[in-house]
Amino acid sequence: MTAQGFGLPYPVELKLEQVQHTGSFKARGAFNTLLSTNVPAAGVVAASGGNHGAAVGFAASSLGHPAQIFVPEIAGPAKIALIRRTGADLTVVPGAYSNALEAAQAFEAETDAMQIHAYDAPATLAGQGTVMREWEDQGLTTDTVLIAVGGGGLIGGALAWLNGRRKIVAVEPETACTLHAALDAGSPVDVDVSGIAANALGARRIGQLCFDLAKEQVQSVLVTDADIAKAQSALWHDARQLVEPAGATALAALMSGAYVPAAGERVAVLLCGGNIAPNPLA
Amino acid sequence: MTAQGFGLPYPVELKLEQVQHTGSFKARGAFNTLLSTNVPAAGVVAASGGNHGAAVGFAASSLGHPAQIFVPEIAGPAKIALIRRTGADLTVVPGAYSNALEAAQAFEAETDAMQIHAYDAPATLAGQGTVMREWEDQGLTTDTVLIAVGGGGLIGGALAWLNGRRKIVAVEPETACTLHAALDAGSPVDVDVSGIAANALGARRIGQLCFDLAKEQVQSVLVTDADIAKAQSALWHDARQLVEPAGATALAALMSGAYVPAAGERVAVLLCGGNIAPNPLA
Repeated sequence: MTAQGFGLPYPVELKLEQVQHTGSFKARGAFNTLLSTNVPAAGVVAASGGNHGAAVGFAASSLGHPAQIFVPEIAGPAKIALIRRTGADLTVVPGAYSNALEAAQAFEAETDAMQIHAYDAPATLAGQGTVMREWEDQGLTTDTVLIAVGGGGLIGGALAWLNGRRKIVAVEPETACTLHAALDAGSPVDVDVSGIAANALGARRIGQLCFDLAKEQVQSVLVTDADIAKAQSALWHDARQLVEPAGATALAALMSGAYVPAAGERVAVLLCGGNIAPNPLA
Repeated sequence: MTAQGFGLPYPVELKLEQVQHTGSFKARGAFNTLLSTNVPAAGVVAASGGNHGAAVGFAASSLGHPAQIFVPEIAGPAKIALIRRTGADLTVVPGAYSNALEAAQAFEAETDAMQIHAYDAPATLAGQGTVMREWEDQGLTTDTVLIAVGGGGLIGGALAWLNGRRKIVAVEPETACTLHAALDAGSPVDVDVSGIAANALGARRIGQLCFDLAKEQVQSVLVTDADIAKAQSALWHDARQLVEPAGATALAALMSGAYVPAAGERVAVLLCGGNIAPNPLA
């Protein structure tokens, strides 16, 4: 969708991954992983801030495998209900994403279930990268693509697919800036995560696969929670796209001026997820 | 967008007119009218349940004409705010759509402003019909298209464009069934209007232009407010499309069984508007 608005003097091409199955791009990595592996009879296990868990639950159920999903409390009721609707077994873990990941790893060690990592695995990255392949097939024309970063699965897959053909701008909340911190430090480092997008972008450390792809070719910018909320509102009012804060983070970089295109530079924004809470119809 | 879900065993092609400028198909008729007429210096006047007013305000402002919009109180705060954002002058009229229409007609009589009727005018109908032309250009494949009916501008335009090439099913709320009542009576008649979609589908009488096009070739079905609310919820949960009740009315006919496709019959649903209230991000 090409949209004009958002207080910007130029049009923006949007990719609407919030209308993907289970409401985010994550279904791509989940299906790619399950379809490229021999899944054990014990099924799959995943830790997730919500969107990955819903995607794994949906992909597993679609393909006939059992799924056990561990989510942190901060996932919130909308995402927890979404995961339940996929038919997956669900455990809510006190704390943040890292606590859910530990619980999933313990489950994996006790059973024969296969772990599907939310972002730092080749099949996950390759699956997420199909969004960029599809976007190019659909006629993406821009020089530059802005993508929000949590653990790096989406941007890593995009970088792998594009292989330098377009400029990628990595957008992160100031309060959950795993890639930005890693680029500063020269390698992935743990960061504290908080803020309105933390239940989707709240990985504590950028994935190594993403970091290796990103370090030479990505421009990293940061936005505030206020920038994100403003972009989320503008997406509804100007383009009737209702997304979660993470889904508005990349656009926030344009609206806030964190990224300013050069004269004539055409830009695209990937809207990555739409699982807002609370229910917008409640 | 082709979507699978909604508790239906078959896929449904959707046309997403809720992402049209000002959030409904009405921008089509407004632009067509203004672009095919010599607009007087006094500008334009319209009465509207909300969506037509926003469309006329937006089209007038985009083309440099003044606009005076009369809306009934039942338009609600979201639609009233939407109209204000277009830059149009706005008067909120106590009562229902018919009261706003009287006020607009009085304004027209007092000034040189041109009235843009919400549905019963050839340029309005022809403009709305471009949605079906566009949909066919985009590859619409179905035998049948379900369309919600208020005053009949949208379905009338669609019928005029299609000229019998596809089956059209007219879907109305039981509590706002202008076309259904007209088909029963053999000509347009006044009906009482109420219910959750009344601020968009609440015309009191079907337009004559629409009736003349519809009477020989349309299948008319009715849905309840509960059916509409269920379809609205399913559009969000299964396809991440957030629409107003009117926008979910056509899908409600499939989900409720008010219209049951024959074996192998392919169906499409036009989502006509997304200006829900209250603000889903509030």
